[in-house]
Amino acid sequence: MSETGTAAMISVPEFTDLCRREAKFFDLYHFQTLEIGAGTARVRMPADERHVRPGGTISGPAQMALADFSIYAAVLGAIGEVPLAVTTSLNINFLNKPAPGELLAEARLLKVGKRLAMGEVTIFSNGVQQPVSHVTATYSIPPS
Amino acid sequence: MSETGTAAMISVPEFTDLCRREAKFFDLYHFQTLEIGAGTARVRMPADERHVRPGGTISGPAQMALADFSIYAAVLGAIGEVPLAVTTSLNINFLNKPAPGELLAEARLLKVGKRLAMGEVTIFSNGVQQPVSHVTATYSIPPS
Amino acid sequence: MSETGTAAMISVPEFTDLCRREAKFFDLYHFQTLEIGAGTARVRMPADERHVRPGGTISGPAQMALADFSIYAAVLGAIGEVPLAVTTSLNINFLNKPAPGELLAEARLLKVGKRLAMGEVTIFSNGVQQPVSHVTATYSIPPS
Amino acid sequence: MSETGTAAMISVPEFTDLCRREAKFFDLYHFQTLEIGAGTARVRMPADERHVRPGGTISGPAQMALADFSIYAAVLGAIGEVPLAVTTSLNINFLNKPAPGELLAEARLLKVGKRLAMGEVTIFSNGVQQPVSHVTATYSIPPS
Repeated sequence: MSETGTAAMISVPEFTDLCRREAKFFDLYHFQTLEIGAGTARVRMPADERHVRPGGTISGPAQMALADFSIYAAVLGAIGEVPLAVTTSLNINFLNKPAPGELLAEARLLKVGKRLAMGEVTIFSNGVQQPVSHVTATYSIPPS
Repeated sequence: MSETGTAAMISVPEFTDLCRREAKFFDLYHFQTLEIGAGTARVRMPADERHVRPGGTISGPAQMALADFSIYAAVLGAIGEVPLAVTTSLNINFLNKPAPGELLAEARLLKVGKRLAMGEVTIFSNGVQQPVSHVTATYSIPPS
Repeated sequence: MSETGTAAMISVPEFTDLCRREAKFFDLYHFQTLEIGAGTARVRMPADERHVRPGGTISGPAQMALADFSIYAAVLGAIGEVPLAVTTSLNINFLNKPAPGELLAEARLLKVGKRLAMGEVTIFSNGVQQPVSHVTATYSIPPS
Repeated sequence: MSETGTAAMISVPEFTDLCRREAKFFDLYHFQTLEIGAGTARVRMPADERHVRPGGTISGPAQMALADFSIYAAVLGAIGEVPLAVTTSLNINFLNKPAPGELLAEARLLKVGKRLAMGEVTIFSNGVQQPVSHVTATYSIPPS
């Protein structure tokens, strides 16, 4: 999906610009897109006390938002600026409760078809080797 | 799970109070808990332009947050105030794109075991019969 | 999805005949389709000692096969004889271990779109009220 | 999960013997366990015309059975002979339809906790680089 030599179809500045114009909700989370490849992405979610839930850990919804955003970046990295690509399903397994702080998501696509893309995301807590959560998601690609 | 005659183990005011004290992140979404039963809950998410995503619809993460919160309410309705009950997995299917506006979640548990609870949530857009999305999730219950 | 007055697009004998002709693998399980509506189905899996797993319960794969088959029946009940409708994703939660014996699956669709159908299945053990497992699945519908 | 230097807690012959004694249903599929590590496994499912479904491809249930079996092998590779470890949830995404023939599953655990293990499986068709399907699953580990 992200073979050596295949360039990303959207750059980080182009993607960030698209999100600022059309996706106000990303402002809730202050995602920082670090890298986009042809079917891959790395995204950082800064520490924010509003994401803390009972037990002193980072909320599931914040992790799901980060994962969904990361796959969106990876999909647009594979197919270019198609804002109407939408998530059709998402599955998350919570593995290890992170301490409050920033999270890092690493997304990669396992399939880019004409109608559907599918990818997985692993979320890490800064400096901890064991993953915080693991996500798979499918995206519907509108007919062009 | 919510047999007639079984009373909820937490009331709506008690649940709302717990969330205010310990779960600041719910403030991002302004959830309004309408009803809690012994393994059921109904929760409203008011319209908020920050939840709009490209295509003029309500973002997946906002729907996932609403679903997760609703099942949390249903779980505490079944087992009482156990703040450390945590989501272990969640699966969402997006069915029909909602117009911007408020959403309503209806959650019910299918199992309440000693260690795990599992439930499903259907999310509706105000006044529309076709569901917006469908969620299943499992919660881990800490040893008491 | 299965409004009163909407007739099934395939009958039980037509469906069973299609499966016999084109889907040899169903012979592994001896499924018995009890009822097909426009987006609903009820299917029985007879007791078979080959489905027993360690712990004296019915194997997960046998339950997943039953659920997948039931949604296939419900999809064809909604759209007619489209053999190439294929599962794109399936999610199962195992809730209560059944004793060895027959299982009953009740499937209903939550969405029938042009390209995707989505449904849920609840599996029961004969005479037991608590569900054995709960499944959601999506089907891809080929362009006609 | 499968750090260099960590030995598997069960060998392939021990695992195969356990399955023969206690899990008759594996006979339906003739799985061949190629390798077990401490939280990893590779399993082969031989070609069998009973797994073919409409469209001339290998049925979803056969793939789900293979995935579930592979994670079971990986879990026992991590924790030893605990026959009553049971799947609590499984999620599969079908990616590319395989031609009839043998399939190969590669499983690895992402978490081994006291009560839950979670892993992922990628299924390949012989000699084809694109994966056939991707599975995540959780296993419940009984108190010892």
